[in-house]
Amino acid sequence: MSGEGDTTLKSICYKPGSLQLLDQRKLPLETTYLEIRDTADGWSAIQEMVVRGAPAIAIAAALSLAVEVSNFSGFDGSSAEAVAFLEKKLDYLVSSRPTAVNLADASLKLKQVIANALASSAAEPNSIFKAYIEAAENMLEDDVASNKAIGTFGSSLLRQQAKNPDKLSVLTHCNTGSLATAGYGTALGVIRALHTQGVLERAYCTETRPFNQGSRLTAFELVHEKIPATLIADSAAAALMKDGRVDGVVVGADRVASNGDTANKIGTYSLALCAKHHGIPFYVAAPLTSVDLSLSSGKEIVIEERTAKELLNTHGGLGERIAAPGISVWNPAFDVTPAELIAGIITEKGVITKNANDAFDISSFAKKVTGN
Amino acid sequence: MSGEGDTTLKSICYKPGSLQLLDQRKLPLETTYLEIRDTADGWSAIQEMVVRGAPAIAIAAALSLAVEVSNFSGFDGSSAEAVAFLEKKLDYLVSSRPTAVNLADASLKLKQVIANALASSAAEPNSIFKAYIEAAENMLEDDVASNKAIGTFGSSLLRQQAKNPDKLSVLTHCNTGSLATAGYGTALGVIRALHTQGVLERAYCTETRPFNQGSRLTAFELVHEKIPATLIADSAAAALMKDGRVDGVVVGADRVASNGDTANKIGTYSLALCAKHHGIPFYVAAPLTSVDLSLSSGKEIVIEERTAKELLNTHGGLGERIAAPGISVWNPAFDVTPAELIAGIITEKGVITKNANDAFDISSFAKKVTGN
Repeated sequence: MSGEGDTTLKSICYKPGSLQLLDQRKLPLETTYLEIRDTADGWSAIQEMVVRGAPAIAIAAALSLAVEVSNFSGFDGSSAEAVAFLEKKLDYLVSSRPTAVNLADASLKLKQVIANALASSAAEPNSIFKAYIEAAENMLEDDVASNKAIGTFGSSLLRQQAKNPDKLSVLTHCNTGSLATAGYGTALGVIRALHTQGVLERAYCTETRPFNQGSRLTAFELVHEKIPATLIADSAAAALMKDGRVDGVVVGADRVASNGDTANKIGTYSLALCAKHHGIPFYVAAPLTSVDLSLSSGKEIVIEERTAKELLNTHGGLGERIAAPGISVWNPAFDVTPAELIAGIITEKGVITKNANDAFDISSFAKKVTGN
Repeated sequence: MSGEGDTTLKSICYKPGSLQLLDQRKLPLETTYLEIRDTADGWSAIQEMVVRGAPAIAIAAALSLAVEVSNFSGFDGSSAEAVAFLEKKLDYLVSSRPTAVNLADASLKLKQVIANALASSAAEPNSIFKAYIEAAENMLEDDVASNKAIGTFGSSLLRQQAKNPDKLSVLTHCNTGSLATAGYGTALGVIRALHTQGVLERAYCTETRPFNQGSRLTAFELVHEKIPATLIADSAAAALMKDGRVDGVVVGADRVASNGDTANKIGTYSLALCAKHHGIPFYVAAPLTSVDLSLSSGKEIVIEERTAKELLNTHGGLGERIAAPGISVWNPAFDVTPAELIAGIITEKGVITKNANDAFDISSFAKKVTGN
């Protein structure tokens, strides 16, 4: 599970009793893994951005506690005390990034697992710890499996809709790969699957201003995986499409509303408009957990604005000043791409396509695949 | 002429016998003028990028020779020797940026002026030098006058086509201001004119990746002129338009083909596509010298590719490495915006609009205004 004999880039290297996290602060120039021995290490790694990306953060936190617990020489307390210990540690981990929804959600789910273990007739501290560790390990495995399913469904869809199903070039935006997830990736997982199938001519990744997730992280992953890849300025995407060099665009999602409107990294909407003009299909790849059925449309999605420094200074705001002093900045983190520009939403349960009314019915899809 | 009593930003500060150039290498963090005493100083300033922008380079070169000549204590030679002296110096100046077409063109025109002065019945060395100095000074004045005319025509056009002619916000790209011209600017001249008329709500400038002419130079000019202005990532333009915050887009031109197709800084085409989708008029502002009637369409314009370093390193390629090692890069300097996306071409002789066939007839316009 730690990646031995497997050259796929992993941000999270786990085997029972041992966790290492790729230090993403040092990418792309240094590849260093940090040993995470307990929740204190896990808390610091999340807080200091060693690990980033919503699914990756939640899983790293859960596994840091699994490692701490599995290395206990003995637990000197009752079953109820074991539960209280785990709950306290989970609350502590959530405090590392209080606004990360996935992390808080994961904590709630893990608390339920512990509560169920306590309710079991054979409850004792070790059985409770064992149930916790299994649940944390399952989160890791489930996320990778979910991404691989997205890759499989997505690669089929892109090939079906391409002029030549055996030779495609695909453009992506931001980082949605192994570095943002437990492994494999969502939109980048689709590109990975096409490459594995031997049908990817070239991946194009945007720089993804202003934080450069594309030039730093996606480019790093693509080079690592030996996928033929080219980096472009965000603003060069339209010219690339006009040259006929893009067969499809695939991006991730921060949030998908029930009508299919999708919030994603700033610049996604511009890519979708350019793709539409050039008749190039534009896809969103995201797990069903990214869909928020409580939102009727993208209008209800609040867009976070980030610090002006990301545009004013180098290194995403951490480096030297480069922009003119005194200039105002508008730096939205995300934009919303309306469903009308999206050709399909690729999930781990299959592709959501438009119905006869040219609309996505995500609610029905979710009911069908989950049986709820 | 040197800008005393006038707070407008000038890259070229000239008065008879004296020339200072704003050192654009140090912008936006330092505003330093370099004294240019002769053609040797002028040559170095151009070669070392103290001054940039095609019109600005040509005028700075011509004026460096004017200053050298006007500070002569006496010229010890014949009229023919005076001509030979000037011609040799012009050739030397052209060698500072051999591929700059405006510089070579200016040299040819100035040589013609000298030849005419030599042919005059009253020719003597001083009259030849005087003719040269006047011609060089005229280049400076003509470029500023031409830009001001573009500002006047452009501001009227934008106001006519805006929802509210008394309150407009305008988006621009790259740097087309005082720093790229002899003064005032082309697309930025239009924004300047709207501001002077008290009808500009806000100017938006893109960062203009990968060389950041927007965040470094345009933002600097806008702050200097106290024009309300906001910097955005290139990729945020579509979201800005969707928010209803842009009434018009105005950009410069590297080259305009006879059908109106326009080559300009990479990212221009993407802005034009986004503007079209949002029903926002998109304008090109450029002097008639930017029109190349020998090109039937934009397909004939060859797009220069620039060094990968501009995307791989900070500071437009001169700073530290930030992108992943080993990644390929596509870095076109320009893209071509088709005439169909352009609402009007704003020149110093008036606005070129589309005819009944929804096409630009630039050739007829040029014939009409020049009388040729």
